[in-house]
Amino acid sequence: MSEIRYDLITGKRVIIATERGKRPHDFNVNYEEKKNNTCPFCPGNEEMTPPTLVEIKDKKGNWLVRGFENKFAAVNTDLKSFEAPSLYKAEYGYGVAEVIVESPEHDVTFGSLSLEQMQKVFMAIIERYKKIAQDDKIKYIQVFKNFGARGGASLEHGHWQIIATSFIPDVVEKEVAGTQEYIKKKGKCPYCEIVKYEKEEGKRIISENENFIVIAPYASQYPYECWIIPKEHQERFEELKEENVASLTKILKTLIVKYEREFNFPPYNIVVHTLPIYDTRNYHWHFEIAPRLTVAAGFELGTGVYINPVPPELAASVLRI
Amino acid sequence: MSEIRYDLITGKRVIIATERGKRPHDFNVNYEEKKNNTCPFCPGNEEMTPPTLVEIKDKKGNWLVRGFENKFAAVNTDLKSFEAPSLYKAEYGYGVAEVIVESPEHDVTFGSLSLEQMQKVFMAIIERYKKIAQDDKIKYIQVFKNFGARGGASLEHGHWQIIATSFIPDVVEKEVAGTQEYIKKKGKCPYCEIVKYEKEEGKRIISENENFIVIAPYASQYPYECWIIPKEHQERFEELKEENVASLTKILKTLIVKYEREFNFPPYNIVVHTLPIYDTRNYHWHFEIAPRLTVAAGFELGTGVYINPVPPELAASVLRI
Repeated sequence: MSEIRYDLITGKRVIIATERGKRPHDFNVNYEEKKNNTCPFCPGNEEMTPPTLVEIKDKKGNWLVRGFENKFAAVNTDLKSFEAPSLYKAEYGYGVAEVIVESPEHDVTFGSLSLEQMQKVFMAIIERYKKIAQDDKIKYIQVFKNFGARGGASLEHGHWQIIATSFIPDVVEKEVAGTQEYIKKKGKCPYCEIVKYEKEEGKRIISENENFIVIAPYASQYPYECWIIPKEHQERFEELKEENVASLTKILKTLIVKYEREFNFPPYNIVVHTLPIYDTRNYHWHFEIAPRLTVAAGFELGTGVYINPVPPELAASVLRI
Repeated sequence: MSEIRYDLITGKRVIIATERGKRPHDFNVNYEEKKNNTCPFCPGNEEMTPPTLVEIKDKKGNWLVRGFENKFAAVNTDLKSFEAPSLYKAEYGYGVAEVIVESPEHDVTFGSLSLEQMQKVFMAIIERYKKIAQDDKIKYIQVFKNFGARGGASLEHGHWQIIATSFIPDVVEKEVAGTQEYIKKKGKCPYCEIVKYEKEEGKRIISENENFIVIAPYASQYPYECWIIPKEHQERFEELKEENVASLTKILKTLIVKYEREFNFPPYNIVVHTLPIYDTRNYHWHFEIAPRLTVAAGFELGTGVYINPVPPELAASVLRI
């Protein structure tokens, strides 16, 4: 069972994933990846994971992409009731957690996948996204990829994650509300404005193609952070058409290959930002991507303000493609 | 020079520390500590750091605790003007960044310091805090300790940091505003309520002495997170009396020793939460401490919601002293 608990003073949510309750010796403080264990994501080991939910196969019937429930889910679909201690507020941690394995090959990095294979990965993600969105208890679906132990990946074999929650998370709510605020004041979508401005100024632009632009955002929180933004105003990632998936994977692959080369296969995160399900407000979906080169520490934890030692203008000049 | 930039959509601040601008090869992706270099924090190497600002000496005249400006400061005291690109908002990154070296010994961990030495560290921190607070351009002073490379410490030799900013950071503002809100609704300080409730319920209490209580907070964001809260209502850390410093160091040392033993010297952060300077609102200062056993990854970056695999009730039963 998992609980959503609220901080008494700030109201900040946290998910306490009770079933994963770990004693000290369960934490591998050295974060080293275990290379010798049998990988549950490799073909032939399907019985080590929950049943297949989505699958894209080759002509011989072998899977190329495979999705299933996360065995160590942070949220649960079985509803149980429980009571918070009288002083505090908490809710049942309802939600959906799934994994999409991006290739049958254990050792291939995301940057080395073929464009065709990458497209299959996104088609599988979108298929699951649309399925999960049918559950009316779900308010937001977070799609992301963690790479590397220090990027939060607990298994080496390349994969994506989907975590769907019964609430709109703070970061998402702030972005969507901020977008409405900007439109109200200026009459234009702020992401469309960024696309236009960054193309003109040129200092923080990294790459572009027909449908997408990659920039180092003006207020980058992390060194070498990048955003991939659709050039046309599009609200939802899940409404991405197949022909645009091709164009997205092309620009994403180029960026990831650049990261892999410049930083010698650094840990990184790719995070999809999209409009909450059923939300009728305006938004402009995009990807936020950051190699994990620095550590958020005491100052960041205490203040919420990130110190970024790399100005995005420098990041853009290094990453420019 | 450093800049405070604002995200166009959410208004979120970030400090771009331009002078630290690092090219890719400057990032040590393996985060390994360099053990063979000369340590600028060791006695005899004082000329490697900026001049001494605070010093506590032994009878022979050797320093036991030493403080100075941070050579790689995230914020600057020299004021320069600059212009943000027309679409965006930014400010000059005014502030003060200092380091307090907690012992002349390079290898001693914080948990192994004598209580007397720990008290000297806090007396030096408080002295510098009060001095920095006299600058009327400063609004908040963040005091913290990073331990271990994965805790964000860039040097091994034990030290604390002070970063003072020209603004009240979001996390701090939310806590202080949340405290006012709670008092308005319930007529009581929420931290005082937590102290009372946790003592009664007992499930999340770790240790207490005459002046302080240690708890695993109900909505712990990190596994084995702990708060040290003064039992009496006290607004400001910097007004801590010398006799209470003794009692604080005693309970803090016990906790850090417990972390060191249970998790084999894990990386961790100690973060002071206190009322902003000149702020006339009500608050209850405390320490927030967390070993860094997990990595905030795609879900946390995208949503702002932390997944904690250790219920604080379990954390308390493991850490109970």
